[in-house]
Amino acid sequence: MLVVLRAGHTEQELEGLLQRLEQSGFVGHVSRGVERTVVGVVGQTFPELRDMLAVVPGVEEVIPISKPYKLCSREFQPVSTTIKVGDVVIGGDEVVVIAGPCAVETEQQVMDTARAVKAAGASILRGGAFKPSTSPYHFRGLGKIGLEILAQAREETGLPLITEVLTPGEVELVARYADILQIGTRNMQNFVLLEEIGRSKRPVMLKRGMAATIQEWLLSAEYIISEGNWQVILCERGIRTFETYTRNTLDISAIPSVKKLSHLPVIADPSHGSGRWDLVIPLALAATAAGADGIMVEVHPHPDQALKDGAQSLTFENFQLLMSQMGAVASSVGRRLHAWVSKPT
Amino acid sequence: MLVVLRAGHTEQELEGLLQRLEQSGFVGHVSRGVERTVVGVVGQTFPELRDMLAVVPGVEEVIPISKPYKLCSREFQPVSTTIKVGDVVIGGDEVVVIAGPCAVETEQQVMDTARAVKAAGASILRGGAFKPSTSPYHFRGLGKIGLEILAQAREETGLPLITEVLTPGEVELVARYADILQIGTRNMQNFVLLEEIGRSKRPVMLKRGMAATIQEWLLSAEYIISEGNWQVILCERGIRTFETYTRNTLDISAIPSVKKLSHLPVIADPSHGSGRWDLVIPLALAATAAGADGIMVEVHPHPDQALKDGAQSLTFENFQLLMSQMGAVASSVGRRLHAWVSKPT
Amino acid sequence: MLVVLRAGHTEQELEGLLQRLEQSGFVGHVSRGVERTVVGVVGQTFPELRDMLAVVPGVEEVIPISKPYKLCSREFQPVSTTIKVGDVVIGGDEVVVIAGPCAVETEQQVMDTARAVKAAGASILRGGAFKPSTSPYHFRGLGKIGLEILAQAREETGLPLITEVLTPGEVELVARYADILQIGTRNMQNFVLLEEIGRSKRPVMLKRGMAATIQEWLLSAEYIISEGNWQVILCERGIRTFETYTRNTLDISAIPSVKKLSHLPVIADPSHGSGRWDLVIPLALAATAAGADGIMVEVHPHPDQALKDGAQSLTFENFQLLMSQMGAVASSVGRRLHAWVSKPT
Amino acid sequence: MLVVLRAGHTEQELEGLLQRLEQSGFVGHVSRGVERTVVGVVGQTFPELRDMLAVVPGVEEVIPISKPYKLCSREFQPVSTTIKVGDVVIGGDEVVVIAGPCAVETEQQVMDTARAVKAAGASILRGGAFKPSTSPYHFRGLGKIGLEILAQAREETGLPLITEVLTPGEVELVARYADILQIGTRNMQNFVLLEEIGRSKRPVMLKRGMAATIQEWLLSAEYIISEGNWQVILCERGIRTFETYTRNTLDISAIPSVKKLSHLPVIADPSHGSGRWDLVIPLALAATAAGADGIMVEVHPHPDQALKDGAQSLTFENFQLLMSQMGAVASSVGRRLHAWVSKPT
Repeated sequence: MLVVLRAGHTEQELEGLLQRLEQSGFVGHVSRGVERTVVGVVGQTFPELRDMLAVVPGVEEVIPISKPYKLCSREFQPVSTTIKVGDVVIGGDEVVVIAGPCAVETEQQVMDTARAVKAAGASILRGGAFKPSTSPYHFRGLGKIGLEILAQAREETGLPLITEVLTPGEVELVARYADILQIGTRNMQNFVLLEEIGRSKRPVMLKRGMAATIQEWLLSAEYIISEGNWQVILCERGIRTFETYTRNTLDISAIPSVKKLSHLPVIADPSHGSGRWDLVIPLALAATAAGADGIMVEVHPHPDQALKDGAQSLTFENFQLLMSQMGAVASSVGRRLHAWVSKPT
Repeated sequence: MLVVLRAGHTEQELEGLLQRLEQSGFVGHVSRGVERTVVGVVGQTFPELRDMLAVVPGVEEVIPISKPYKLCSREFQPVSTTIKVGDVVIGGDEVVVIAGPCAVETEQQVMDTARAVKAAGASILRGGAFKPSTSPYHFRGLGKIGLEILAQAREETGLPLITEVLTPGEVELVARYADILQIGTRNMQNFVLLEEIGRSKRPVMLKRGMAATIQEWLLSAEYIISEGNWQVILCERGIRTFETYTRNTLDISAIPSVKKLSHLPVIADPSHGSGRWDLVIPLALAATAAGADGIMVEVHPHPDQALKDGAQSLTFENFQLLMSQMGAVASSVGRRLHAWVSKPT
Repeated sequence: MLVVLRAGHTEQELEGLLQRLEQSGFVGHVSRGVERTVVGVVGQTFPELRDMLAVVPGVEEVIPISKPYKLCSREFQPVSTTIKVGDVVIGGDEVVVIAGPCAVETEQQVMDTARAVKAAGASILRGGAFKPSTSPYHFRGLGKIGLEILAQAREETGLPLITEVLTPGEVELVARYADILQIGTRNMQNFVLLEEIGRSKRPVMLKRGMAATIQEWLLSAEYIISEGNWQVILCERGIRTFETYTRNTLDISAIPSVKKLSHLPVIADPSHGSGRWDLVIPLALAATAAGADGIMVEVHPHPDQALKDGAQSLTFENFQLLMSQMGAVASSVGRRLHAWVSKPT
Repeated sequence: MLVVLRAGHTEQELEGLLQRLEQSGFVGHVSRGVERTVVGVVGQTFPELRDMLAVVPGVEEVIPISKPYKLCSREFQPVSTTIKVGDVVIGGDEVVVIAGPCAVETEQQVMDTARAVKAAGASILRGGAFKPSTSPYHFRGLGKIGLEILAQAREETGLPLITEVLTPGEVELVARYADILQIGTRNMQNFVLLEEIGRSKRPVMLKRGMAATIQEWLLSAEYIISEGNWQVILCERGIRTFETYTRNTLDISAIPSVKKLSHLPVIADPSHGSGRWDLVIPLALAATAAGADGIMVEVHPHPDQALKDGAQSLTFENFQLLMSQMGAVASSVGRRLHAWVSKPT
């Protein structure tokens, strides 16, 4: 941590700062520049110290130097984490495609979609049983019945399941059905939920908050890991900007950034990232080219009848089109698409 | 809801859209302009319809017309809501000041602060016992012990209490101590929490999500009201923008906007809104001039030793300075500051 | 400037950095912390050095310490700048109101408005003759004829004039008519224009770019001052955020921030800052309470017939309403409204 | 254009609106829904009408339906525009790489870079002679001498040149040297410059403003085209968001969006888009996979000595690495990299 004194500070102010540091068990290392005096704080600093020093007389600014996250950093663990879900490995050489409806609506809808995405090459089935909704008057999901429909689709197709959990009290229930627990964008800083999931043994996909910095996202992953669950997959799903043509702005630069800063796998969700089905294919390819370990897309048998997010859902035909291009792009950057080998359907 | 067809749409596409509407029980009202054909959807529309129609062939855009919230709108209830907490009325003629430490640290700290803010004219005491924190390694609050310390301060000073609740499972506990339940910015779209608090009988302060639009904020209020709790106070606390000099950008225009759109009271939090103690006074005065029903500020006996948010906390002296100016500004816009009359300390 | 080395850097990398600094005439001051080594760069650094050092092997981050602007900073000049335009002083004890139509449309419109705003208490007349426009098909202003109409209004009312200049080639022409040259938000970083205006002798109002940080805004002021023109008035006019209810988000916190960082006067433009006439009054009062040296608002005889920005223009009646409240708010924060004393109309 | 009346409007207000429309030569088409009355405005509307109608009594909101740009839209011209510069075609089947230093510093630097990027497969040489700079104290470019150095590099390598023009007065000078005129992000709404370049015969690359919506960007292209210059190349270069890890957020979704809305070619600038050399390669590949017609990257012989933007410049080695991957990614999406055939070096 570095403390910058204001121009023209008094010697008394400097002295006061150094005493304050000494009392707190730190050593202050003074460096006088042409325009500013800077004091380096040597010792095991802690985050609250920043605000404490910021109001010491004569201080202009306090600059933290260490990264605030540890366990999820690549400094701490240089080797990339891989997460195994059934036969699928996320974070390794293969690029993984997760597909399915936004929300579970009916058994028919889920079974048809599961079969279609499996046939086209998807590796994992997605579908929401508990749905967050901006309005209390929107569709909120089928709940436990939705989980049972998803389990039935897994039974038939063999595809592992990912589904969202909304609240600490439902982690246990959802974990009984799901192979991967999903934390939605609005819950990225629901710290009680993060901790509860951190105590679960299930792999978890942590979506980036729509207004979260990369650092805050990694700190939320840190919450989960610090409770003992290291199986965290990050998911970039678009951030909120001034642009209104797309629902969000998919921050593709976050993918290589996170791969550099952290050992955790990262995938992209171009469906929520754009809110427009006609942008899903180019963005899925772009994310793959940028180094994503996988993509997650919404697919619906009849987007014009979907109870949720029809405008960003691919038809079965468009999903096949996407899959026909994914392999080539993955190869072009030295990866390959995960494919089911001799797996009974 | 209005459906805009793309330029050069076919008659078949228009026909298909109209049939689709008819099958769903709506009447389509066609209006052919010079450049675009627009179809007005007459009937009781619902939010999901937008996405459904967006993917009908020939459709370019679907524009919702009705506001998605009802119960919290001024259209629904033209008279401003007032909320009574002890002798304090929020949303009436008086401007109310809520003050106290960010987090409860010690009994001494809370008692000293409560006495000081009471003496200077505050009407309600704030203090966090359960604290959300971006990092798992930061101070997270004293929990139940913190609530007890706050209750003791209320006992002595007579100041009603506001404190935050983080998760549905703790609503009952916190409601046993708090006069007002606070929902933090990161929980504005924690819908399970909103519903649980909606079933509580306690007044609630709903902070705006740091990346939430005014409409999303009002929809979150709608969640609480639709469960039966009409005692909702809105709190503008700064939004996330590209500017880094301040921690957030206090959106003062949201105050008169919300007063126009909704009957709910709205207050401002210039401490979190700026992250800098030296901006708290001018922003508190600005919010009052813009029509806020109150302000909430952080006060600490020794900001340079605060375990949380010291950089944005006022000293007792600065809080007195603020209070000495609040009354004049409130008067200048036809309001008056709430003051304790013949209240034993 | 501080150079942070990556965790686990080699001694060779540190050595290389120190040699590099020495060759460039700087002294490197090494400070080894628990997690990071930091090198303070002592000497007269320059901005490009940051990028140069950022790519030296072993370097993780380079942190500038000095503020990049000098002449406009309060460190450089502690006394607030005041700017005199006719009998009006901007930046002193008085709060100044600038009012008039967005664009000059007709002689009648300008004369009527000038008389009305003068009568209600405005100190300076605004009006655009050269108008920037997002679309090539919108109204672009009357040009030189517009300037002549404005001059005629000054002649009759005695109100000094402020009007916008769009391009370096027109500075001389506009300066022949205007008492204050206005630089619009889209030109805040039109550096050739800034320099040309810096060589003019006219006071200038520099609007904040709608996506400019406070620091970038001050750097643009620095451009003007460094060419010799110290008569710079800053104008906060709203920044671009994700919120769509208002056209921009008026950043009222920028007002006290700029007053702290710089000696230049700062005013607020709630008309562009909100894009909604019904928010102009509360925001004008809020800006005044926050310490603005003045406000600039748009007024039109018939907003529903305005060729530009009718939705954010006040009628004469609403402008009178604003003026009737401005004085009280100015007084409540120890200022007073500028008023014409014994000035012939 | 659609006019939404407020809930509970009077019949008189509706009548007033219809009369107002009739007087202005429009037909009002009334559609009464369950919650709102909407009036469709039939006739050749113009942009200013929106603000005019917004303040008519009883009106709640005015919604424009037509797109505000015409000539650059794909509706107007369904066939993609291709632009020929020497032997290079931009906007066709080939993906084009533009490379070179941020700023021209010395003859040696430019010649070395030009040779290196040519050898590695670049099609066009970039380099700045007139440089915009946030601070008046930064390097501002060599001016005319810089143009001459660039021309010498073209002479030797045969690479066409792109370079920036800052102000209307210099368009003619820069056009004497440049094959493509570049308009920088800060000048995207410098309308006088857009018009001057619209009257030039040179192809032009229009960078997106860092806070411009896609619609505003296309309107700026419309300015150029409406003056007669149809040779416009769009360049996505990152937008300003709350994220600070990258200098800007490269909006890759803008690439397929613009290809859908407009017939103009679009390229991406991952150097400015990220501000970090280590993100340039993954982002260049991502943009290509998303359908960009080319990329523009900064290359410098010694990034640690660059006078500008060293932190985002590739070394020659890293540029070769990029080029070795570009071909495969272009092929994977059905394009191919432009390559010089039998061109003397």
